[in-house]
Amino acid sequence: MIFGDSSALILIDIQQGFDDAYWGKRNNPDMEGNIGLLLAAWRHAGLCVIHVRHDSVESGSPLRPGQPGNDFKSVVSPRRGEHLESKSVNSAFIGTGLEDFLRAKKIDTLVLCGLTSDHCVSTTTRMAANLGFKTFLPADCLATFDRVGYDGRPWSAEDIHSSSLASLNGEFATVMLSEQVIEMLLK
Amino acid sequence: MIFGDSSALILIDIQQGFDDAYWGKRNNPDMEGNIGLLLAAWRHAGLCVIHVRHDSVESGSPLRPGQPGNDFKSVVSPRRGEHLESKSVNSAFIGTGLEDFLRAKKIDTLVLCGLTSDHCVSTTTRMAANLGFKTFLPADCLATFDRVGYDGRPWSAEDIHSSSLASLNGEFATVMLSEQVIEMLLK
Repeated sequence: MIFGDSSALILIDIQQGFDDAYWGKRNNPDMEGNIGLLLAAWRHAGLCVIHVRHDSVESGSPLRPGQPGNDFKSVVSPRRGEHLESKSVNSAFIGTGLEDFLRAKKIDTLVLCGLTSDHCVSTTTRMAANLGFKTFLPADCLATFDRVGYDGRPWSAEDIHSSSLASLNGEFATVMLSEQVIEMLLK
Repeated sequence: MIFGDSSALILIDIQQGFDDAYWGKRNNPDMEGNIGLLLAAWRHAGLCVIHVRHDSVESGSPLRPGQPGNDFKSVVSPRRGEHLESKSVNSAFIGTGLEDFLRAKKIDTLVLCGLTSDHCVSTTTRMAANLGFKTFLPADCLATFDRVGYDGRPWSAEDIHSSSLASLNGEFATVMLSEQVIEMLLK
C-alpha cells in the first residue's frame, strides 16, 4: 500500500473552538503537531487535501459560524486549491458534497485526522468504509474529550479514544501512526 | 415523550451466527430475554417493528446467507406484516430501503436493539441521528464482543459496550433501559 493520486487527507473539525473549556478535558496534546507534520508531507507529495469545518447549529456551541471558534486552527489553514466542505452533523458525508467530490476525483483511499475520535471522526470513518472507501486513521492525529456514561460512569478522554479505535480498527479502518502514513507516501 | 405511531423498533443483526465462537467473548447474556420482553410490549402496543438481517459477504463469516447462522434468533422471529431489511455493511441505512420506508411511514423516532453495540448498532444509530431521527438505545438490549486495540491493548466486551454508549449518549441517542422504554409505550 502506497498513498498516491487516488488518496485524500481529510482534516475534520480542527477548529479553534475546540480549545474552549466547554468541551472538558482532552487527550493527545501532540495532535496539532503531528497533524502539522503529516499535512506538510502530504502537501509535499502533491496529494489531495480536504478540509471539513463544523458549522454548528447548536446555540452555545463555540463552533457556530460567526464565532471566532468556527475558524480553523492555524496548523491546518487551507491553501489555495484545497477542497473545503462544511457540515452541521457528525458525518462529513451527510448534507455535503463530499462523496460526489471523491467519486469525481476517482479517490478511493482516505486518511482521516482531527476531532473528535469518537464523534465526528468515528462517524465519518464508519460511513466512509460502508460506502466502500479504503480508510486509514493515524491514532496520534486524533483526540477526544472526557465523557460520562448514561449510568454515571466516568470515562477519561484517553480511554474513550483508545476504545473507539479498538472498535474501528479492522472493521472500518486501519489504525496506524502518522509516521507510518508518511513512510507510505509516494516519493 | 411517549412512543406511538411515529415510532419504530429496529432489531439489528439478532442472528444465530453470533453464537459462534468466531466472535469471541460477549457481554450481556440477558440481551435476548430483555429484547423478548420489549418486543412483546411493542407488538402489544401495535407499533412498527423492523427486522434488519446482516447478509455477510465475507468468506468465513457465520452470518453469510445459506449458513444456519444467517437465521434470526427465535426470540425475534418476524411476524407477518413486520418489515425486513437485509444489509451487507454495518449501517442499516446504506444499500437498503430503510430511510425511504421510514419517511413513507412518517416515522421519526427509533428504538434500536441488537448486535453489536460498537459496530452495526453504533453505526446505524449515528446515521439515524445525523439523518434527523430521534433515537433511543436500551442499553440492556445491546451486546458486543471483546476487542483488541491496534496497540495490543485488550478491551473487555463490557468496557467496549459501556464506552461506546458513553460516546453515543446525548450526541446521537438517549440511552436508557428497556423497562423505561416499555413504560413510555402509548397505552
